[in-house]
Amino acid sequence: AALHTMIQLLSMFNFMKVELGDRMTLRSKEEWRAAGAEFIGTLLFVYLGCGSVVATGMLSIEMTSARLIAIAMAHGLAISFLTGATGAISGGHLNPAVTLAFVVAGKETLMRAGLYVAAQLLGGTFGALLLKWSTPGTMVGSLGAHDLANGIYGAQGLLLEMVLTFVLVFVIFGVAVDRRGPGVIAPIPIGFAVLVDHLVGVPYTGASMNPARTFGPALVSGNWGRAPLVYWIGPCLGAVLASGVYR
Amino acid sequence: AALHTMIQLLSMFNFMKVELGDRMTLRSKEEWRAAGAEFIGTLLFVYLGCGSVVATGMLSIEMTSARLIAIAMAHGLAISFLTGATGAISGGHLNPAVTLAFVVAGKETLMRAGLYVAAQLLGGTFGALLLKWSTPGTMVGSLGAHDLANGIYGAQGLLLEMVLTFVLVFVIFGVAVDRRGPGVIAPIPIGFAVLVDHLVGVPYTGASMNPARTFGPALVSGNWGRAPLVYWIGPCLGAVLASGVYR
Amino acid sequence: AALHTMIQLLSMFNFMKVELGDRMTLRSKEEWRAAGAEFIGTLLFVYLGCGSVVATGMLSIEMTSARLIAIAMAHGLAISFLTGATGAISGGHLNPAVTLAFVVAGKETLMRAGLYVAAQLLGGTFGALLLKWSTPGTMVGSLGAHDLANGIYGAQGLLLEMVLTFVLVFVIFGVAVDRRGPGVIAPIPIGFAVLVDHLVGVPYTGASMNPARTFGPALVSGNWGRAPLVYWIGPCLGAVLASGVYR
Amino acid sequence: AALHTMIQLLSMFNFMKVELGDRMTLRSKEEWRAAGAEFIGTLLFVYLGCGSVVATGMLSIEMTSARLIAIAMAHGLAISFLTGATGAISGGHLNPAVTLAFVVAGKETLMRAGLYVAAQLLGGTFGALLLKWSTPGTMVGSLGAHDLANGIYGAQGLLLEMVLTFVLVFVIFGVAVDRRGPGVIAPIPIGFAVLVDHLVGVPYTGASMNPARTFGPALVSGNWGRAPLVYWIGPCLGAVLASGVYR
Ligand SMILES: [Ca+2]
Ligand SMILES: [Ca+2]
Ligand SMILES: [Ca+2]
Ligand SMILES: [Ca+2]
Repeated sequence: AALHTMIQLLSMFNFMKVELGDRMTLRSKEEWRAAGAEFIGTLLFVYLGCGSVVATGMLSIEMTSARLIAIAMAHGLAISFLTGATGAISGGHLNPAVTLAFVVAGKETLMRAGLYVAAQLLGGTFGALLLKWSTPGTMVGSLGAHDLANGIYGAQGLLLEMVLTFVLVFVIFGVAVDRRGPGVIAPIPIGFAVLVDHLVGVPYTGASMNPARTFGPALVSGNWGRAPLVYWIGPCLGAVLASGVYR
Repeated sequence: AALHTMIQLLSMFNFMKVELGDRMTLRSKEEWRAAGAEFIGTLLFVYLGCGSVVATGMLSIEMTSARLIAIAMAHGLAISFLTGATGAISGGHLNPAVTLAFVVAGKETLMRAGLYVAAQLLGGTFGALLLKWSTPGTMVGSLGAHDLANGIYGAQGLLLEMVLTFVLVFVIFGVAVDRRGPGVIAPIPIGFAVLVDHLVGVPYTGASMNPARTFGPALVSGNWGRAPLVYWIGPCLGAVLASGVYR
Repeated sequence: AALHTMIQLLSMFNFMKVELGDRMTLRSKEEWRAAGAEFIGTLLFVYLGCGSVVATGMLSIEMTSARLIAIAMAHGLAISFLTGATGAISGGHLNPAVTLAFVVAGKETLMRAGLYVAAQLLGGTFGALLLKWSTPGTMVGSLGAHDLANGIYGAQGLLLEMVLTFVLVFVIFGVAVDRRGPGVIAPIPIGFAVLVDHLVGVPYTGASMNPARTFGPALVSGNWGRAPLVYWIGPCLGAVLASGVYR
Repeated sequence: AALHTMIQLLSMFNFMKVELGDRMTLRSKEEWRAAGAEFIGTLLFVYLGCGSVVATGMLSIEMTSARLIAIAMAHGLAISFLTGATGAISGGHLNPAVTLAFVVAGKETLMRAGLYVAAQLLGGTFGALLLKWSTPGTMVGSLGAHDLANGIYGAQGLLLEMVLTFVLVFVIFGVAVDRRGPGVIAPIPIGFAVLVDHLVGVPYTGASMNPARTFGPALVSGNWGRAPLVYWIGPCLGAVLASGVYR
């Protein structure tokens, strides 16, 4: 269903630079290697990101500024080194919203994007599963699944997720896609963007910016939260907006 | 009024290397693209910086070392990746004091500087507005607006803001302007400078070094603090001093 | 005994790309210089990593999120700069599991690997000794030796150590070995991987990923923990798996 | 007196590669520009480093892991960006122990080293003075001056300062002096070394590794601690040892 929603969203942007791509794509060895990198990268991202939520939850149940920093560093720096490690193979998206931004900008075909998003959602699910197996049952909790904090309205959460994902995609386009940007160090500012986004967003929505990060632990733990669509619509809108603004 | 003060300050330095620039500047498409980058960059900086103050304020009302670190990382790393993402388009100033330093050094015309500063102040205001809309009314507080801490005199705050901005501009000139510096990684030391400045300055003045960061949330929240000029004069003096020392 | 186990493990992978290497290796001056770099690098890593556990233990006995961050930064950033400083001399492994990954990938001979692992274990031991001599007896504790946390099963610890070491070796191969990766900045993502691994793993197993880090303080303090083999088998399995996946 | 001790120490190493240099050095404009960079760089380092001690002291009087992290980040990241900003002008030593290491390695003449060390001590003093003027009298405390913690013997403090300075100089030689090292990003691992050294050393000795950092606030605040020589002998021994080992 989630994948289906994604495809619907993608087709809405058909009037943009979107290219369908060739069915042959799916027979190329290189494509599958790229999808494999997206699968492993997203798996490790979810294992480490959600793992930091579970691990710091063993130390103190309530959220504190120190716990917030640990969670933000885990997510942000993990994106930094996983993007660095998979960038040469797959581009290092590790995030359906990022893949969508590339499709809308005409830099990725719909075919390849579908393969990527499937790999990312599968990776997110296996990452959450592996984390569940690593953790004593009494400490698993909701595996770091996202939900709106008390007092935050759905529209506020959606606006925040949109702005934070805009930040992420704006930085990706500025430092990694734009040839005048500081190419070789790109994984560092991209990771810093995810880190800061978490410092701001965790007390509001948990700070997703990434439907695969939301999907995996929700599926494995059964905690879908009280506004699950916020985590698909917010990031996708932010990604498309940033992709549009950058041109 | 704030913009007017800025222009007065700028004209004071007419005897330096300041160039007026051409009215044609304002018709160039590239100039407006650069101003747009300054607008978006400053908007996101204020959203994230002030957002970290509001978000950690939801976790604990009083300032602690952990909260201080979260706020410092948010401001410092945001400057790092936003400078990286906008650097190739506008130079990535995102700060009227930095633009002033470039004017005084003869590296930016007054015309372009006026356009930049307007874009920065507008960006700071919209960033604060967007943050207000993302946040439940009971938690908005003063949106991270600056004020002198209890017991700090205006002169002390001004000296501190001057030194901290000197640090920032000294580093920008050393790593990004000076051709012998480590060009490609420049956004990293610049972000670290802002981060450390916050670790020192937040308990004194909130650590501005940037009139646009001060202006936006003050306007939107109505909290101008008990010494608003400190946040214009301190940063401008520090920026001009560093620009002079570096030559 | 530990060294013996290591050699047994190594021979199990004989069917891979493993090369024995030449006895002459051990007479080459360059080889000994490389082994010296591994010795000093691992010594300093254990001194600083365990030192951060002991030092923060002086401030608060229980583990908190803030203490976790300090320990994670110490281990992760130390790997970053020590890898950077020894990389040109020895490759900057500083970890028997990393050396094993290179052997399995056919990028290091068994002969040289034996020399490296001996240097690493010796370095880890001297690092722990130096730390003991620097510290008042009442504060030495277990010198940061590893043990499973209460409630964590051996199999969970082993799975976690395997995944976390997989992360480390996956990143090393992606950013430092792969020529398409961001070569010059490689020590930064590698350090970030160790940092994030600690944010997740410390509340489970102490987060080793490195048998030399486990071996030194265990030998010097006499604290071998309740599942010492977890810290050899988990990292070695993760390293071999990542080495296999990357090809 | 401190300067005199320094000169005596320097002459002890006359049998090494030490070169006296030419009196003409002191007439060269470039030399004075370099000394100026050392003065400003050390001034800002002491202002920011000691400033973080004073600022976090306003939030909580006792040392906690969070306060430790803030202090460590301030010192480490400040060295990173100040080294980056002054590196092209003076080499970015900002530390008499580092200058000593270069003298012993034959990479700096005694003449120039004397000029540098004088500039560093003067910079450290003015940095402490500026910080004092920025701070309300009731909060100045000892301005971040160093002292051995309760229960730490002088010999332990000296050993620790020696090892931590060894780390710093080992990294400087590995990443900045060695041509095979990752030159352009050198300021980052060097800053990380200072950061981690603080995470370990602050609860023992305050973590100096730098006689200029110790000298300035001691002179201005009058707090010389109970073992002031530890902060000269430890760093100098560590620096000379690392300089010797690296060759
Ligand atoms: Ca295309
Ligand atoms: Ca000009
Ligand atoms: Ca080979
Ligand atoms: Ca020489």
